[in-house]
Amino acid sequence: MKIALAQLNFIVGHFEHNIGLITKALAEARSRGSDIVVFTELSVCGYPSQDLLEMDHFIDQCEQSVKEIATHCKGIAAIVGVPTRNRNSYGKRLYNSAYLLNEGRIEAVYHKGLLPTYDIFDEYRYFEPATSFKTIPFRGKKIALTICEDLWNLDVHALYRVNPMDELIKEKPDLMINISASPFAWSHLADRHFTFSENARKYGLPLFVANQMGGHTELIFDGQSGVYNSLGGLVGRFDSFAEGVKVFDLEEVLKNDVPPKPLIIDQQAKNEIIYQALVFGIKEYFGKLGLSKAILGLSGGLDSALTLVLAAQALGPENCRAVLLPGPYSSDHSIKDAVALAQNLGVPYDIITIDETVNAFEKSLEPWFENTPAGIAEENLQARARAVILMGLANKFGYVLLNTSNKSEAAVGYGTLYGDMCGGLAVIGDIYKTEAYSLAKHINKEREIIPVNTINKPPSAELKPNQRDTDSLPPYEVLDDILLKYIEGRMSKEEIVETGHNQELVTKVLKMVNASEYKRRQAPPVLRVSKKAFGFGRKMPLVAKHPD
Amino acid sequence: MKIALAQLNFIVGHFEHNIGLITKALAEARSRGSDIVVFTELSVCGYPSQDLLEMDHFIDQCEQSVKEIATHCKGIAAIVGVPTRNRNSYGKRLYNSAYLLNEGRIEAVYHKGLLPTYDIFDEYRYFEPATSFKTIPFRGKKIALTICEDLWNLDVHALYRVNPMDELIKEKPDLMINISASPFAWSHLADRHFTFSENARKYGLPLFVANQMGGHTELIFDGQSGVYNSLGGLVGRFDSFAEGVKVFDLEEVLKNDVPPKPLIIDQQAKNEIIYQALVFGIKEYFGKLGLSKAILGLSGGLDSALTLVLAAQALGPENCRAVLLPGPYSSDHSIKDAVALAQNLGVPYDIITIDETVNAFEKSLEPWFENTPAGIAEENLQARARAVILMGLANKFGYVLLNTSNKSEAAVGYGTLYGDMCGGLAVIGDIYKTEAYSLAKHINKEREIIPVNTINKPPSAELKPNQRDTDSLPPYEVLDDILLKYIEGRMSKEEIVETGHNQELVTKVLKMVNASEYKRRQAPPVLRVSKKAFGFGRKMPLVAKHPD
Repeated sequence: MKIALAQLNFIVGHFEHNIGLITKALAEARSRGSDIVVFTELSVCGYPSQDLLEMDHFIDQCEQSVKEIATHCKGIAAIVGVPTRNRNSYGKRLYNSAYLLNEGRIEAVYHKGLLPTYDIFDEYRYFEPATSFKTIPFRGKKIALTICEDLWNLDVHALYRVNPMDELIKEKPDLMINISASPFAWSHLADRHFTFSENARKYGLPLFVANQMGGHTELIFDGQSGVYNSLGGLVGRFDSFAEGVKVFDLEEVLKNDVPPKPLIIDQQAKNEIIYQALVFGIKEYFGKLGLSKAILGLSGGLDSALTLVLAAQALGPENCRAVLLPGPYSSDHSIKDAVALAQNLGVPYDIITIDETVNAFEKSLEPWFENTPAGIAEENLQARARAVILMGLANKFGYVLLNTSNKSEAAVGYGTLYGDMCGGLAVIGDIYKTEAYSLAKHINKEREIIPVNTINKPPSAELKPNQRDTDSLPPYEVLDDILLKYIEGRMSKEEIVETGHNQELVTKVLKMVNASEYKRRQAPPVLRVSKKAFGFGRKMPLVAKHPD
Repeated sequence: MKIALAQLNFIVGHFEHNIGLITKALAEARSRGSDIVVFTELSVCGYPSQDLLEMDHFIDQCEQSVKEIATHCKGIAAIVGVPTRNRNSYGKRLYNSAYLLNEGRIEAVYHKGLLPTYDIFDEYRYFEPATSFKTIPFRGKKIALTICEDLWNLDVHALYRVNPMDELIKEKPDLMINISASPFAWSHLADRHFTFSENARKYGLPLFVANQMGGHTELIFDGQSGVYNSLGGLVGRFDSFAEGVKVFDLEEVLKNDVPPKPLIIDQQAKNEIIYQALVFGIKEYFGKLGLSKAILGLSGGLDSALTLVLAAQALGPENCRAVLLPGPYSSDHSIKDAVALAQNLGVPYDIITIDETVNAFEKSLEPWFENTPAGIAEENLQARARAVILMGLANKFGYVLLNTSNKSEAAVGYGTLYGDMCGGLAVIGDIYKTEAYSLAKHINKEREIIPVNTINKPPSAELKPNQRDTDSLPPYEVLDDILLKYIEGRMSKEEIVETGHNQELVTKVLKMVNASEYKRRQAPPVLRVSKKAFGFGRKMPLVAKHPD
């Protein structure tokens, strides 16, 4: 039996597009002698469809689409993912389902049993979990079909009461097929590989996984669909961030005896995959919204430099526009470094000073501000004047403003709301500053794209004379370690202090994180590359007393 | 037996505060001869604690708090709500639990079975649902104790597989107690009353409900705790938005034979309860964040007028500051109407023209904007110049900027991101424009607080000459009806057209709603007063093809 996996870029709610991709893949796989094509989780409507799933006519369109796809399943079968209505007298209105389509009709249906509802996942918001599981017969083989999370209940402390494969294995299936929509996070890749490998090994069956690829606002799906032999060894894997249809011969996979091997992501591989993910994330955000042009404020500092490199790679330098917005406290090297980068990349740039607009605000506010010491309010005027100019150009010429904040500053609220926190998409908002340095060096590994001075100079917001980030913040190596332990690790103040940090400093940093929740609530969507990004995967109360 | 219900204002994560409220209520109830005090759902940590629940030390603090509260339960018992650790080998890490504390110790534990996970609720994100249910013996009575949603499975199409009361009733309990954190929505009040009444009637038992009160960012909890007799008749109910401890005699409730009666909210009652809710919501947001002073841009139009009235009532006129920011297209009556309102309310006001700052931006942008037709970009400059001035004053003097957008304009994206969409809290963001008119007339019912001209003149953003909202939008009666059907009703374009709307218009409005998703993602938290507010209770994909 020949099994094709299809790793395709679906668009949420774009049934015509999705059906088109599916039928094209069916035709291609048929021409290559496949018996069946496996598509990804909720392939018919795209994942995540969020509250569109609550609309009756959206589900109607899903049902119609499946019927249409079934008409193309002649001489070849398909497994597609689609929400289906729950016809029982209780439970959520929908199931997250997989259909086996064959000979023009729906031959079998499987409902997902384990519904991830944590971090960015909220499947129990929409779906009823299945509680019984049956294998699916197809051309003399028994398929143990599962959907994504159904295979992820391996932990010692299992998150779910049932384990679908433990039920399915009782029917002595011949192979496992899993359809997934498992999003990218650099440190998740090894877990995902392990989970698939371990399932194959545990149940002694070959495993065929089709995983969604594509960008969905902040969520990046890398794909990396693949096939494992019954020892857990990797037989073949798709490229990340790329569409494709691959055909595998079941008999050959059954004979394959490559041993299991852990996936190791070293520093170099981490930088490379994050670079690819962010470029892909930008491309997808723009592409799927029908937009093409990006603008950003280029300060001469590391964050905007990194953002511009990624944007130029994603959209082409000719579709990017850098604006240098020197203010009263900008240093000469800022302009020089920014210009050098724009020239290196071939990105058109403009220089618009903010002195006049900042002066106009200061004059308008003078009767109220006089006799008060200059402080944050004045600094913010500069950041906001820049934002107004950038948004003016964006609105006039149809650019999307890219936000250039990194995760460290977003975490501690070191940024101006409605100023440098503006933008349609936060490109490096899930990258800690120390990671940004590492990524910049990775980008420069063959030639100096980002001026070395941009990487080496002490970071500064340049909103007051001789300002440096370290005036308000600890060194980034220290800050990022504390943030990682607090945000990703959910450690308490005491626990973080026990790892060797200064108590006063930890107290201060945690307070900054908690006190800036209100800013992050209004921040742009952040391209997610870690297991815990700011955005809807981290739900913190804004009005609360945080533990201290 | 005397049963006290305690409707108290807990703060999320503020254990000291919450324990203080609980022990004070215990002392008061003891002095009034009560046998037991019933506190609300998750009273120990506050509801919703969101991802704080994922922190181990937060749960440790919950456990310590319960032990401390138990020491106060001498001669009187308490039912408190608290997250507890799941000690089974599977499932989510926590239960949403209720403890019976008596004689200094934990005497019984009940775990919530039905976990709401829809709209603003996400309980399955954190909690494992209980699947077996036992009554709790106390002083010779059997209590059927449930937590909030546990009583809400009455529909013909039940949302959940189990019905805790159907299990508990088998043990022939003497009474029902329900601890809740059921948030306010004006149209939800009748449902809530019906649900409690119907449970009492269905099971033929008196029902004692303690429901949380207090504001938690966008969520407003009104309380309205109460007691129902075994016919479903209302024996007594707490005031909305107010703390209190009330003692009820079980024997008297058992004898009570008031018949059940539906709760009817007419237009007048709707306006009054929404007015109270919004005033309370502002007060809570500021109070719990330790803030006291609000600033807003007062345009002379309806929305900012309404917002100022509510803020002045909530915070006191002396803690509010209105800023009139006339621009090139502001009309004379705008200033006049705004001044009249500020004077009516006794709110200090300032006038700061934006002409100079807008001119400065236009001059800075002239080399790029010249030879382009004036449009949205120029209009947005005005709105953003206003925002920068308002935020400048807010940052300088410690005000919170109040956002004045209504639900209709938020829905169609009729507002400037980083301009009039700025603010720490969107006060009337869940009020459609037609509702805003009704609320304004309600406010004026005894005397003219909001100038009649503000209510009667055609609404305009005044960002270009002779602009009116109806240049870009249909009349608000038509718009709001379409929006209500689309957003609250989840109806399709075809279904809305079938109710009598013009097809082209419906298409245009739906497109506007879907195309402005990206703006709402960066909007301030919206005080929720309806069953479907913008914010985290409505999760729409930003990158998607919406059904059309």
